[in-house]
Amino acid sequence: MVKEIIFHKRPVEFIEHDTFKVREFEIPDEASLGADQVLIKLEYLSMDPAMRGWLNEVCNYIEPVHFNDRMRGAGVGRVVASKSSAFKPGDYVTGFTGWSEYAVLSANEVEKAIIPKGLSPPDALAITGMNGLTAYFGLLDVGQPKAGETVVVSGAAGATGTLVGQIAKIKGARVIGIVGSDDKCQFIKQLGFDHAINYKSPNWKNQLAELTPDLIDVFFDNVGGDVLNECLGRAATHARFPICGAISEYNSTTPNPPVNYTNINPRRIKVQGFLVFDYAARNEEAIKDLTKWAIEGKLKSLIDVRKGKLEDAPIVLNELFHGNNKGKLILELIH
Amino acid sequence: MVKEIIFHKRPVEFIEHDTFKVREFEIPDEASLGADQVLIKLEYLSMDPAMRGWLNEVCNYIEPVHFNDRMRGAGVGRVVASKSSAFKPGDYVTGFTGWSEYAVLSANEVEKAIIPKGLSPPDALAITGMNGLTAYFGLLDVGQPKAGETVVVSGAAGATGTLVGQIAKIKGARVIGIVGSDDKCQFIKQLGFDHAINYKSPNWKNQLAELTPDLIDVFFDNVGGDVLNECLGRAATHARFPICGAISEYNSTTPNPPVNYTNINPRRIKVQGFLVFDYAARNEEAIKDLTKWAIEGKLKSLIDVRKGKLEDAPIVLNELFHGNNKGKLILELIH
Repeated sequence: MVKEIIFHKRPVEFIEHDTFKVREFEIPDEASLGADQVLIKLEYLSMDPAMRGWLNEVCNYIEPVHFNDRMRGAGVGRVVASKSSAFKPGDYVTGFTGWSEYAVLSANEVEKAIIPKGLSPPDALAITGMNGLTAYFGLLDVGQPKAGETVVVSGAAGATGTLVGQIAKIKGARVIGIVGSDDKCQFIKQLGFDHAINYKSPNWKNQLAELTPDLIDVFFDNVGGDVLNECLGRAATHARFPICGAISEYNSTTPNPPVNYTNINPRRIKVQGFLVFDYAARNEEAIKDLTKWAIEGKLKSLIDVRKGKLEDAPIVLNELFHGNNKGKLILELIH
Repeated sequence: MVKEIIFHKRPVEFIEHDTFKVREFEIPDEASLGADQVLIKLEYLSMDPAMRGWLNEVCNYIEPVHFNDRMRGAGVGRVVASKSSAFKPGDYVTGFTGWSEYAVLSANEVEKAIIPKGLSPPDALAITGMNGLTAYFGLLDVGQPKAGETVVVSGAAGATGTLVGQIAKIKGARVIGIVGSDDKCQFIKQLGFDHAINYKSPNWKNQLAELTPDLIDVFFDNVGGDVLNECLGRAATHARFPICGAISEYNSTTPNPPVNYTNINPRRIKVQGFLVFDYAARNEEAIKDLTKWAIEGKLKSLIDVRKGKLEDAPIVLNELFHGNNKGKLILELIH
């Protein structure tokens, strides 16, 4: 018998001890696979901020996870049995496998994990996976930074934020990252960010003002709340604000909307939400650029791998909301 | 001696009895005009929501009005003396004349008022002036409504809102106006709006939900606050929100930012501020369309003319913030 994790009780704020339950099931043998199905042994599970939203009663862009269903999530693993001509045992694949030790998916639900030379399989999750594509399209398509402009990134030490900052540098911008600890400030400066601000520091608003004498041209937001508000206050005329997420609000029962939204009209700010799924037709172009930059050493993948058993997944996911990760948070499964 | 109105004391919320003062001055004679200057006798003063913002200490896109300076504002009048070859006595002109009975401006600061056949000079202020251009560029360039889509307009009975709704109908959209009285509901329905909602009615949110079963594709916002929040809650995927103003916040000391801003990411909403000044290079195109629609009877100008003396201007301006105007608010000067 192997394990999967199912949704049990809706959390109010943070994920709780009884949000999920473990359920056991029999590993299917090759003979029981349907046409075009593959059996995957999971090695890595991706932990993403959006996953918290899938546990709400109403989810805006995707069906919420239902009670007693396996928790949804992206994973990387190795094909161990295949009835698809597109995959053979041993192939590294990625897809929405959910939280499980083994998963059966149809061939059209999985993709070969692209692992550029020198990158590990979890790197593939980080750079050419959902986070890399999100950083690429959100920054370049919505944000459109020009050389010499000031780009500010919130959640800058996270999986997407680290890549946004590095891509902005590749495009010649001046880059300021906003993070939640001094340690993370050091971390993103090592990645090439020009400046880093810890929003938990009492004078962070003054720091932001001092570091943006010509105001902010592009603000890539993962956080919402106070940080978004402050950046709306420092927005340049015709600033672009790609809105990738609002992690400060996901677990919150006391919303904190930005009072500086009244700047949107006089400063002609474009505040635009986007989701990586909408850009699927352009993935190839993005993966080509991201891979090239990674191989050239201009784009470093930053992976925060926690080794643990499947049962640890809820605790690891919660680390995101406590701000305890640096870079892409991944659970490496101990079977 | 003639009169002008000068800024005297900064208001906290609404304009107060001592916000302005009257000052007298001598009408300049022709000989005292500088090269290229014209002397204008004002007939109409335009009353616009943005004018309240010019009295704040900080104004985002234009210099605030300074104490003891003439109150800024657009006006229409007749040239009575000219040292410019471009204008002759009797010409109808428009420009930022300020609140005064007479104004001296340089030729490059005024424009001939374009008065299409069948339209009166104040119509020119409404349709081919700032409000018409604002409606045209905000709706068509930022909002980009497609035939069959649902367009919602707040401040729908105002100078800009009435034109936005009519242009959206011309483009084949289904149009819902949000206003502040039952009387205004009737008024905008007579203009061809498909539906009207009075946001002071206790069940207006239910009405909005019932009238938008397929959600909102374009929301042209003049109001901000609760109305913006509710429309963010009803936004369709890939909705466009041209932000023209936030009149509910201009006089407010208790800001009311929209908690539904967290929908911007998952629904991929574009919330974009704009100002008509940025489109100056395309004015000719807009005026051509607006004039054509007006002559064809598809676009009705709605003018709320108050006759009064110059000293009444502050009281008339305040009518905007009390929601007492229907259509473009204009003070017709009694000399």
